[in-house]
Amino acid sequence: MVEYLEKEHRKQPHGKIPARNARVEVVVKGHNEQNELFELVVELDTEKVASKKHQRGKHSYIDAEYMKAVEQACLANEEVQAEIRTLDLPAGSTVVVEPWAYATDGMNDMTTRISMVGVSVPLCWFYLRLLENADANYYAYPLDICAEVSEVLEVTKVYRLPTKPEERINNEKKKFDRNRIHYTAASEYHPDLRPSPRTTTKPYQVIQPEGPSFRIHGNHVEWEKWNFRVGFNYREGMTLHDIRYDGRNVFYRLALAEMFVPYGDPRAPYPRKAAFDLGNDGAGINANNLQLGCDCLGTIKYFDAYHNTPSGEPLKMPNVMCCHEQDDGILWKHTNFRTQNPVVTRSRILVLQMIITVSNYEYIFAFHFSQDASINFEVRATGILSTVPVDLSVKDKVPFGTVVAPGVLAPYHQHLFSLRIDPAIDGHANSLVVEESKAMSANDSPIDSPIDNPFGNGYMTESQTIEEEGGFDLDINKNRTFKIINESKMNPITGTPVGFKLMPHYSQMLLAHPDSYHAKRSEFAAHAVWVTRHEDGENFPAGKYTMQSAGGDGIASVIARRRDSGAPQSVRDQDIVIWHTFGSTHNPRIEDWPVMPSEKLMVGLKPVNFFSGNPGLDVAVSTQAKNKSVLYAESDGEGAGPCCHSKL
Amino acid sequence: MVEYLEKEHRKQPHGKIPARNARVEVVVKGHNEQNELFELVVELDTEKVASKKHQRGKHSYIDAEYMKAVEQACLANEEVQAEIRTLDLPAGSTVVVEPWAYATDGMNDMTTRISMVGVSVPLCWFYLRLLENADANYYAYPLDICAEVSEVLEVTKVYRLPTKPEERINNEKKKFDRNRIHYTAASEYHPDLRPSPRTTTKPYQVIQPEGPSFRIHGNHVEWEKWNFRVGFNYREGMTLHDIRYDGRNVFYRLALAEMFVPYGDPRAPYPRKAAFDLGNDGAGINANNLQLGCDCLGTIKYFDAYHNTPSGEPLKMPNVMCCHEQDDGILWKHTNFRTQNPVVTRSRILVLQMIITVSNYEYIFAFHFSQDASINFEVRATGILSTVPVDLSVKDKVPFGTVVAPGVLAPYHQHLFSLRIDPAIDGHANSLVVEESKAMSANDSPIDSPIDNPFGNGYMTESQTIEEEGGFDLDINKNRTFKIINESKMNPITGTPVGFKLMPHYSQMLLAHPDSYHAKRSEFAAHAVWVTRHEDGENFPAGKYTMQSAGGDGIASVIARRRDSGAPQSVRDQDIVIWHTFGSTHNPRIEDWPVMPSEKLMVGLKPVNFFSGNPGLDVAVSTQAKNKSVLYAESDGEGAGPCCHSKL
Repeated sequence: MVEYLEKEHRKQPHGKIPARNARVEVVVKGHNEQNELFELVVELDTEKVASKKHQRGKHSYIDAEYMKAVEQACLANEEVQAEIRTLDLPAGSTVVVEPWAYATDGMNDMTTRISMVGVSVPLCWFYLRLLENADANYYAYPLDICAEVSEVLEVTKVYRLPTKPEERINNEKKKFDRNRIHYTAASEYHPDLRPSPRTTTKPYQVIQPEGPSFRIHGNHVEWEKWNFRVGFNYREGMTLHDIRYDGRNVFYRLALAEMFVPYGDPRAPYPRKAAFDLGNDGAGINANNLQLGCDCLGTIKYFDAYHNTPSGEPLKMPNVMCCHEQDDGILWKHTNFRTQNPVVTRSRILVLQMIITVSNYEYIFAFHFSQDASINFEVRATGILSTVPVDLSVKDKVPFGTVVAPGVLAPYHQHLFSLRIDPAIDGHANSLVVEESKAMSANDSPIDSPIDNPFGNGYMTESQTIEEEGGFDLDINKNRTFKIINESKMNPITGTPVGFKLMPHYSQMLLAHPDSYHAKRSEFAAHAVWVTRHEDGENFPAGKYTMQSAGGDGIASVIARRRDSGAPQSVRDQDIVIWHTFGSTHNPRIEDWPVMPSEKLMVGLKPVNFFSGNPGLDVAVSTQAKNKSVLYAESDGEGAGPCCHSKL
Repeated sequence: MVEYLEKEHRKQPHGKIPARNARVEVVVKGHNEQNELFELVVELDTEKVASKKHQRGKHSYIDAEYMKAVEQACLANEEVQAEIRTLDLPAGSTVVVEPWAYATDGMNDMTTRISMVGVSVPLCWFYLRLLENADANYYAYPLDICAEVSEVLEVTKVYRLPTKPEERINNEKKKFDRNRIHYTAASEYHPDLRPSPRTTTKPYQVIQPEGPSFRIHGNHVEWEKWNFRVGFNYREGMTLHDIRYDGRNVFYRLALAEMFVPYGDPRAPYPRKAAFDLGNDGAGINANNLQLGCDCLGTIKYFDAYHNTPSGEPLKMPNVMCCHEQDDGILWKHTNFRTQNPVVTRSRILVLQMIITVSNYEYIFAFHFSQDASINFEVRATGILSTVPVDLSVKDKVPFGTVVAPGVLAPYHQHLFSLRIDPAIDGHANSLVVEESKAMSANDSPIDSPIDNPFGNGYMTESQTIEEEGGFDLDINKNRTFKIINESKMNPITGTPVGFKLMPHYSQMLLAHPDSYHAKRSEFAAHAVWVTRHEDGENFPAGKYTMQSAGGDGIASVIARRRDSGAPQSVRDQDIVIWHTFGSTHNPRIEDWPVMPSEKLMVGLKPVNFFSGNPGLDVAVSTQAKNKSVLYAESDGEGAGPCCHSKL
């Protein structure tokens, strides 16, 4: 692929075109009296199966059709219905069953029953939809019933959930507490179920009279010296490829590689709440159909995606990605205080966005390209908190959750993302450098230099190039900075290698115990920065098959296996991959209820001595002729009379 | 003031109006044969001097008129001229002198000469303006001459600066190295001196057909349930007062309180480069006159400010603050996967912005108010790096700076800001809580609860209320969170006190040695979060007089003095002030040259169990009817032909 692209970059004939292969996961039902998973590689040009592998003990993605069947089977089950009757629910309300693929907890998922199946075995959570409207927020009424359903759609267990911090799974036939019923306005987000919205927010429109600044042909995007290709797949959703700036290679591939959402509630069965939203669910298959005027503003290009249904039929998913420009405030400004002449440019950014819905939660993923040659990856977490029932008698603060409505506990949880950065900083042979800023000690001499520090103000940077694959931590107290450099391309002015630096999102790593299945299954969540050698197909830091995985397939294990096998470990001047783990420890606030205001996380990649100066220096200055801003007159706000006594 | 405001909030007659006083700093020249500083408090209503204090040994702000006189005196000096002649400068070039108030370094600033004066004694840096145009970037040619000028405008010292890492101040008469002269395009930012700018960035306009959503009367701003007053003063520039949301008190006052920019170059005289841009220069007096269509987009309200000239004449500063709205992407979204009905709202923010120019650097300060009841304070650092000469023979990396152009070293430095947060969370008696998220140990029982953690996934929060004034550190590994709460106002649903949490900007604290003058003078820079009791007039965490201060006047000293004197130290359920220190360790990249793309820093204040749910829940859904976005057709980009061979 690299060879092919290099020819394209040089505008040479392509020659041999790399084969187009599709990786196919097939669940053969009842094969050898079991459901079994096979992985095929299919050559699309020749329509031949190039390879076939029986993935014993592994599980494919969540199958939405199977999940629907589970819901129905669960609700049709007489034991479940009997349990529901004991609740004595309000008339006119509806029970909603939400099946979750459950996380390995070491209890019974290691038994034959589970390892036999090619599809996930779900845990069914129960909720009450109090209103008739199908868009009513049933997460506001979590019920204390839980059921387990087998791969042949049999209900294997029904029990009652704990509703007090010290309680356990039980069979107590508690009734639904009518005192939990609260004002609809406090729990509903759908406009049909809410009072009229505020009318104070006036329209705000983005006009691009000459059209956008980007040019898109097929999956190729050109914008402001950037060019790259956009991809989209079942698991990762949006991917970016062959990212170049002004004719220079920068990144070979950028994509979100995994995310893990473990819950902190220690009571069984809640340790089974731990979702791999890419590995289990698939970000691509859960992508929203983005609508004009809703999810972006301005002039919008939408991309469609093509996938398949669980039974293998083609599936067109319209508008799964959008591309548009945003104004981003001031790019740079300087006023010469002698001449009083200001020069100011505005920053324009290009946004590539995908939004996914994974049951209750939404994630908004966006790459932002800037005119200063930086790339930012923004994550916004929104949607609805996952809720569990809590007894109204619980008056103390629950140490692992927040009561967000009567009888509704939003348990603490973490969102841990892995951004996979496959660099090509002026070529594919790159290195990772750790730089720290440290005070010179007052009598100290910096390296190779007889400078002393008599005034105690001196500080310097120290750099270390990472030699071997591994995981590393951030340290803001040392201003520890990770730079991806090309050791064989020196910046002629600074005298240092060309590079890009990671602007990390500082976050707490996984809290679960290192011996827990959570930790074993999400090895990437132990360190903020990982570096590995590039290996084809190594795209997933928690392993290819995360569904009910038992651990040992993640990035740390892969590195350890290579080390043990004597395989090359050097990451210096090699084709390397950087993985950044970041996220949030989300201890809910009531302000996150009933739908959560976007929580923003931002990771950046910024050139560092890659160019010969500010890459945005040639952006035209900002002028009123182009921007057509409008002056506000105080009288514009008149009409409602003075808003306060203002004698000050 | 509190009493007055509370009456206003309740729409009661104000009764007694607080006296309006002005604090005046007067330098009496030649008083007792010295320049001396007096501080007056003047009652504006009665025009009487209420108090007068001789501030012995203290220095007022930089006096721009004096600085201009210093420049002229320096250039007129024969010794200086002789030194310049030894440089043998290119014909047609101009020497530019930039006087800096110099930082205390313990060398000779403690002598009588300095402590006598009421104005600052500057160090003069020399630059070469190679081009005739007065807007040419002279920072591209720092010269190795340095001069010191006295308060009576006498040149007291002239010497040559070190130009190698190991060099010292000297008298070597080096000529200006003609090999330093480089392409203008690499060093100039002014459009008159640059090649034509890129033309690829198409116009982007913000249209608000029904006007903005804010209403402003005088200094009172109302927007989307927020209301507050805007202030502006000589030192802090923009201040916000009496900030309320939906009729509830949130913050009494928010303002940037100080910033310190120490340089890390250990060679004399560079330890004297350490600027207090508020305390020495004044953010207000250095505020830019913001221009329509340049510094903001959309419908803009500008605020003027009124100050005085150094000689005491009234001075109107137009357009020093702007107020406008911005679209901020998606506020919240949820798609019910059963009904496939998406509900999405866009986030609108209100921006209050000020931009200051302090010699070479620009800072853009903006408060962002959100519909989710959060407030963000954004800082953008831009402008031109402060540069020093470096010998072309220096080929190795300089350990404390970056070579950004031939002969031009941009030394490492830090920007350390202090945001002063005077809370009024549902009232003025508030507390500060430190909350940490920690794993439950596998056999551990959380507080007062017999819950165990058999699966190792459990984690919980532990909170500690701070009892006494002091400084505290961040710890992302513990997800340490600082919450400002009102212990006497419980959230009826969550059962916890109402509060707002600080979303800090993670940054390295001061690197200078604790015994250095830098550290003594910028006590706030030692910790990320400080809490003190509110005391009238205690607004400045490095002390009221930072100019050539010797230390001991900062926040740590004030706390220590109160402790030593037996004054109350409790910050629990008291009128308190929170100070957040944040910034950047700025080790320049060449991409920051010749003008720096904005480096963004963001601090947030977010409600945490303050409301009964998402405060933005009643924002109307996003619709195309209001937003009028435009669909991009691939053919829009046609015309220039296909941009690449796209066989993939």
